[in-house]
Amino acid sequence: MNFREQYENYRRFFEETLSDFCGGMNFFPPVLGESMRYSLSSGGKRLRPVLFSAALDLLGADYKKEGALAVAIECIHTYSLIHDDLPAMDDDDFRRGNPSNHKVFGEANAILAGDALLTYAFEIVLREVGRGEAYRRAGEELARAAGPSGMVAGQSADLFYSANGAGERELSYIHRNKTAKLIAAPLVMAAMLAGRAEEEMRTFGEALGMLFQLTDDILDGTDGESETEKQKLTAVHVFGLRGAEDRAKACAEACTKALHTVDGDREFFESLVEFIRSRDH
Amino acid sequence: MNFREQYENYRRFFEETLSDFCGGMNFFPPVLGESMRYSLSSGGKRLRPVLFSAALDLLGADYKKEGALAVAIECIHTYSLIHDDLPAMDDDDFRRGNPSNHKVFGEANAILAGDALLTYAFEIVLREVGRGEAYRRAGEELARAAGPSGMVAGQSADLFYSANGAGERELSYIHRNKTAKLIAAPLVMAAMLAGRAEEEMRTFGEALGMLFQLTDDILDGTDGESETEKQKLTAVHVFGLRGAEDRAKACAEACTKALHTVDGDREFFESLVEFIRSRDH
Repeated sequence: MNFREQYENYRRFFEETLSDFCGGMNFFPPVLGESMRYSLSSGGKRLRPVLFSAALDLLGADYKKEGALAVAIECIHTYSLIHDDLPAMDDDDFRRGNPSNHKVFGEANAILAGDALLTYAFEIVLREVGRGEAYRRAGEELARAAGPSGMVAGQSADLFYSANGAGERELSYIHRNKTAKLIAAPLVMAAMLAGRAEEEMRTFGEALGMLFQLTDDILDGTDGESETEKQKLTAVHVFGLRGAEDRAKACAEACTKALHTVDGDREFFESLVEFIRSRDH
Repeated sequence: MNFREQYENYRRFFEETLSDFCGGMNFFPPVLGESMRYSLSSGGKRLRPVLFSAALDLLGADYKKEGALAVAIECIHTYSLIHDDLPAMDDDDFRRGNPSNHKVFGEANAILAGDALLTYAFEIVLREVGRGEAYRRAGEELARAAGPSGMVAGQSADLFYSANGAGERELSYIHRNKTAKLIAAPLVMAAMLAGRAEEEMRTFGEALGMLFQLTDDILDGTDGESETEKQKLTAVHVFGLRGAEDRAKACAEACTKALHTVDGDREFFESLVEFIRSRDH
């Protein structure tokens, strides 16, 4: 099976699991469940759930038994996109080609959809934790990666330095917290559940997360449709296109190096590093 | 010790515990920790943490060992106030006589402070869950009470029916979800940790929560400073002042009745029901 087929397998497993969860979101009033499902079901690469499944696979655990935690991870990623798009934040009217949550449901409902998804993620986590200490540790990892020592700190730093200017050090803090920690989290969680390679997967995951953000910035910076009036704080602005590409290359090498410390069939992840580095969307 | 002294004891224990936690909130950028602490430290009755401590006491558990969960409960309550006050939600410039979070830190930082407090609450919960299955169940109870089957549903219903009109049934749904479940949660969590009287405490807690919201509405409705232009959906609007008072009386009786099914020294809670019913702020 080649890389794209394998990715598609993991992604399809996730979509099926998510669909079951969405079917159970009969919250009242209906607009609450609708606004949650609207953003959850909007597709995308499903990178974080795929990373989680692939890492479980690599480390010898059965990823098909861990669909619930994959949904929890994606709920947290989705809430962060809804809140990021709000007028008071990045003020984005579109997300993946569709109107953003607040354009469809209004700002108040979008704030609540985000709050609901974040809390719902921990309802799932706390149910799963009944399966044992490894699940508790995985849940705690997810909370830390998402909270004020992780993703929220990254968002806050992005706001702060966008207003006040930033150099390499500040940008690296933003990328690590805003993006890399929630990309590393599914890999670390998988290692916790599999009972091995925790630190190796953390090192790999953080490098992969930095690579992902750098290539995102490079795509943004070379995209003709980019809203240049907003002057986002990106690696291309801080380092120039060439500097950002050099850094992406170094990150990809760090990924490969970290990956080689993990025993198992690493082929999928080796291809994934290349896929992320050379992606065009 | 009389009721007010006992309440003050529980409250003081909570303030001391909270102060320790706030001391550890050295998040970066500093505005993130500052905005979290600003709302967390703004005082108030600390009703939910006091209920949690008092219920542990009533049921024979040592409340001084459960300070962390009390902080988690208050973090969730505080996040909900920050997000409720946002311009897109209730648009309140003041909270407890002080400028609301977004008036001090701006909307974007206020959204993030709320997100951070909600996630941080589950970081605490997931740490505590390492102490055993009763803690996991208590954590799950808190998540459910706060999420899309609880408080967020109540907020969403409040928005929806404020725009579309509501009768008794709809108002009762809003009150139960928006307020009563997060007032019942600390009582149910205490019962789980103490290993007894779970359903009794839930029945008592939900009646107490409804009583709290009814007296809140009555205070709002008779408060000369109330912003009448906003026409909030309250019990006074739906039932009239007299109707709301009758319902508060019935709720207080339901509290007393439910409380009598619990073994232990119930004096504090009996006084608390009267305190909430007859409070003037």
